[in-house]
Amino acid sequence: MAAARIKGVLSPVVTPFKRDLSPDVGRFIAHCKWLLSQDCGLAVFGTNSEANSMSADERMALLETVVAAGVPTDRMMPGTGACSITEAARVSAHATKLGVSGVLMLPPFYYKGVPEEGLFRFFSEVVQRVGDERLRVYLYHIPPVSAVAITHKLVERLMKAYPRQIAGMKDSADDWPHTRSMIEAFARDGFDVFSGNEKPLIDNIKAGGAGCISATANINPGKIAETYEKYATRDGEKLQLWINDVRGVMQGYVMIPALKYCIAHYGRDAAWTPVRPPLVETAEAQGREMIAKLDKLGFTMPGLRQAMAVAAE
Amino acid sequence: MAAARIKGVLSPVVTPFKRDLSPDVGRFIAHCKWLLSQDCGLAVFGTNSEANSMSADERMALLETVVAAGVPTDRMMPGTGACSITEAARVSAHATKLGVSGVLMLPPFYYKGVPEEGLFRFFSEVVQRVGDERLRVYLYHIPPVSAVAITHKLVERLMKAYPRQIAGMKDSADDWPHTRSMIEAFARDGFDVFSGNEKPLIDNIKAGGAGCISATANINPGKIAETYEKYATRDGEKLQLWINDVRGVMQGYVMIPALKYCIAHYGRDAAWTPVRPPLVETAEAQGREMIAKLDKLGFTMPGLRQAMAVAAE
Repeated sequence: MAAARIKGVLSPVVTPFKRDLSPDVGRFIAHCKWLLSQDCGLAVFGTNSEANSMSADERMALLETVVAAGVPTDRMMPGTGACSITEAARVSAHATKLGVSGVLMLPPFYYKGVPEEGLFRFFSEVVQRVGDERLRVYLYHIPPVSAVAITHKLVERLMKAYPRQIAGMKDSADDWPHTRSMIEAFARDGFDVFSGNEKPLIDNIKAGGAGCISATANINPGKIAETYEKYATRDGEKLQLWINDVRGVMQGYVMIPALKYCIAHYGRDAAWTPVRPPLVETAEAQGREMIAKLDKLGFTMPGLRQAMAVAAE
Repeated sequence: MAAARIKGVLSPVVTPFKRDLSPDVGRFIAHCKWLLSQDCGLAVFGTNSEANSMSADERMALLETVVAAGVPTDRMMPGTGACSITEAARVSAHATKLGVSGVLMLPPFYYKGVPEEGLFRFFSEVVQRVGDERLRVYLYHIPPVSAVAITHKLVERLMKAYPRQIAGMKDSADDWPHTRSMIEAFARDGFDVFSGNEKPLIDNIKAGGAGCISATANINPGKIAETYEKYATRDGEKLQLWINDVRGVMQGYVMIPALKYCIAHYGRDAAWTPVRPPLVETAEAQGREMIAKLDKLGFTMPGLRQAMAVAAE
């Protein structure tokens, strides 16, 4: 029996690191639980999670720890993409065995300008190597970072070959007409299209999409989830404008360190700021400016301080 | 006592795969030995080796097998770069312990537009984690693929911080003035600059560079090595024109499958053609056209057929 598909608002959960750059398991679990308390699902090991700055072994160990801590797997869509078929298959099989709702899979992102046939073979080979009926793959289109696109033709071929396994996509091209075209082409066949941020959230739902997976859901999960719930109402429309304003502030800064700066600030927990190189922490002056802008919008992170106080103990 | 630095002509050794896409160890060792017989060093696990299409475990296992087969480590510069500090450090430490001459290290290539400070911290952290006096790092500048550059300022900072460990670079920007500027800035301090292909080989040597690491050295190693040896002579200049013609033919095709097609053809060993997705094999019509052009130049691969016959047994 197939589980219900994961939908709504998900956060590519930022990964806290200790001063020695090892994953801070306690704070990671606390952040996952806080996000769940705000009705936000967990796209752990996404771009904003610095997943590619961790080895496959580190990601698999961290996922096991989080699952052992009782974080529900049916609210999880871990990133499992890699440049090699072997690593992508290994990590995807591991996550699927743990019972996650689906996996978010980058295309192989080292070689540029590769043919669609090669991408088809890559995903095809990974699905076959995982060899698990429960596998649900969400294709990850993020050309500004991966520089390798998930095209309509590729989706069509993969859905035809693996109708049960190819479950949807995250579209991080930041181009609503592109996302809409994916929904129009494939949603009727059960392909769940998540927008890569919350700006077109109501449009996404109205068009038949599945929701959004957004970096800023790390700090603003409750209001984004509320927008999702109230999408058909005037309240929802007002919320959409406000969450877009918050997103607008964050887009003025380098996203990953800026998210961690916010969590450190609103959670009163300075241990949140480290990032793994090649990223660099937000400078204090920039951080203070960002917080001032967020405060001006009436932005808060309800319950975060208590959640982090538990983790810091 | 530090070993003599590796110099001259190196090949980013193409990795043969079986039909099931596992590395074909026998053919890989045979190709390594053939390249050595042609005076060509071994930059195994480079871009043209499909290194990023293999997991870290696969690369480490293959390196151990090759070393165990008696391929000399002082003629090897394996690629060990990765998007994560943990994987880059682990693979680099492993290769260094095996006694390789140096490691060719990509910058972390997932995030784009990262600050120089973050790249400095990345390489710095890897050098410190390896913690081995024998480590020699060659920085790998290949912006058309990695999309993350190794800048002059970054080289300067790394050389100052780790004068013994930072040994040189491979410049695959395919822009001779850029390579020359690196030689002019750093060669006097013992920084060995390899051109990313053979086209500017004589210019590289005359300017004080260390040679070249070139995809086409997989098929044309002997004549490129001879150009290196005879760089100061009229014969050398003539050879340079001819090896450039061969390179010119190959640049008309997708390089990695095209190299494998050539080895299959001239080595009379069809088992050489498979590539890992997202790459795709050279189509027969294109392959035949390419071979016709190479034949017209009088191109041969001396001794390859015998070398491959041994591997195929």
